[in-house]
Amino acid sequence: MKELPIGIFDSGVGGLTVAAEVMKTLPAEDIIYFGDIARTPYGTKSLETVRRFSIEIADFLIKQRVKMIVVACNTASSLALATLKERFHLPIIGVLEPGVLKAIKSTKSKRIGVIGTQATISSNAYPQAIKTIAPDIQVLNQPCPLFVPLVEEGWLEHEVTKLVAKEYLTPLKENQIDTLILGCTHYPFLKGVIQVVMGNEVVLVDSAIEVAEEIKKVLSQNNGLRPQNSNPVYKFYVSDTSSKFAEVGKRLLGNEIQVVMQVNV
Amino acid sequence: MKELPIGIFDSGVGGLTVAAEVMKTLPAEDIIYFGDIARTPYGTKSLETVRRFSIEIADFLIKQRVKMIVVACNTASSLALATLKERFHLPIIGVLEPGVLKAIKSTKSKRIGVIGTQATISSNAYPQAIKTIAPDIQVLNQPCPLFVPLVEEGWLEHEVTKLVAKEYLTPLKENQIDTLILGCTHYPFLKGVIQVVMGNEVVLVDSAIEVAEEIKKVLSQNNGLRPQNSNPVYKFYVSDTSSKFAEVGKRLLGNEIQVVMQVNV
Repeated sequence: MKELPIGIFDSGVGGLTVAAEVMKTLPAEDIIYFGDIARTPYGTKSLETVRRFSIEIADFLIKQRVKMIVVACNTASSLALATLKERFHLPIIGVLEPGVLKAIKSTKSKRIGVIGTQATISSNAYPQAIKTIAPDIQVLNQPCPLFVPLVEEGWLEHEVTKLVAKEYLTPLKENQIDTLILGCTHYPFLKGVIQVVMGNEVVLVDSAIEVAEEIKKVLSQNNGLRPQNSNPVYKFYVSDTSSKFAEVGKRLLGNEIQVVMQVNV
Repeated sequence: MKELPIGIFDSGVGGLTVAAEVMKTLPAEDIIYFGDIARTPYGTKSLETVRRFSIEIADFLIKQRVKMIVVACNTASSLALATLKERFHLPIIGVLEPGVLKAIKSTKSKRIGVIGTQATISSNAYPQAIKTIAPDIQVLNQPCPLFVPLVEEGWLEHEVTKLVAKEYLTPLKENQIDTLILGCTHYPFLKGVIQVVMGNEVVLVDSAIEVAEEIKKVLSQNNGLRPQNSNPVYKFYVSDTSSKFAEVGKRLLGNEIQVVMQVNV
């Protein structure tokens, strides 16, 4: 069992930021990554559809014999994590909870902001998760639908991106949050611009590092870690051919990403 | 045969602009519309994937017994029209050719600009279509990946949209085109902003009207038009639940859009 790979999936390339952290934190672990780039993005889709897609991908990963599934997509974590946990009987980890715990630890003003896709924000999953643990914390939500297309366009420092960030984030700034959860795996690419708009005193929470720590914890508890001197094997699957996936992958993972295989789920 | 509906499909809501023109030009015709909103957008996807999706939708429409298929999506028209025509034996009309013919008629400087999604522009379908008819015309291509997300966000007159339009369109303006093909069914929503950047002397070609005329011509030639006093029935299918589809539909089509049914293809 412990020799099996960790399965990680996302609607596209964003989850590679999580994969990169897992590689750093758990360098002996094999990884199978799936990016659903034929149906990306998830952030504009409905609850039912995101659940259906997530189940199909979990089915695929389980057929590849993974020991654990990491839902490295905030939209799928917000909309489908409970469904997946009900349906499949292996450890399944989302990206919400680790970020939420970090944010609760960080806030002093008890005012946390959350930004994400339309679907993530509409699901209300973040405020629910925060209020279950810390009912006294106020949560301010803001969907940022243009952030993902801007990252995909590569306009990470562009004048347009600054203007969009100002428009989306000014209400959060005015409401004096001191901690902002980047509730979408694409958003860390915009950290620079977001930090400028929010000011240096606001802590940005990027869940990827927290998620990697959570994976380590869960595997340790289940005696599921590979021996530390193992050489890892990384496999990447996508649902569409795309040179962009390999490009972004190379930028994030360097030589760790070689072959990308296309499959239909 | 002539009593059967016309099938129209798009990756999402954009094709409704074509449906609206068909309703005006051919008020006696029944229409079955399919919007693939579970997998939208197509403009960032590969040739193979757009072809596969298009075949699946054409299959669905043919099962609903349509007399003709209108590919009301520039990406699918650019990447999949030939494949569909080879595979299915009913009249199939795309949105490229009608727009191309209009643009060739319009240009005096013999310099035509084309804007579209990344997939449409990469396919080179527009320059090929133009040069087959008029080899002496120079075609200038520009992908505009942020236009669709901006329309979906509803920022039709926003400062950000103006800045994005300036960035994408300035090279076309500097190259002194006198005619610009709006090679994506979403782009007519941005006509105002685009016209300001390009200047009033540049003609914007919106294919929807041309496509409706082409449908009329093809049906007439095949003796396929319904009697002029028939009352039309309109049916709308989508691949995801979405309140947005009905909203945009109501804005474009008024009371003609009532029930939207969800199906998986």
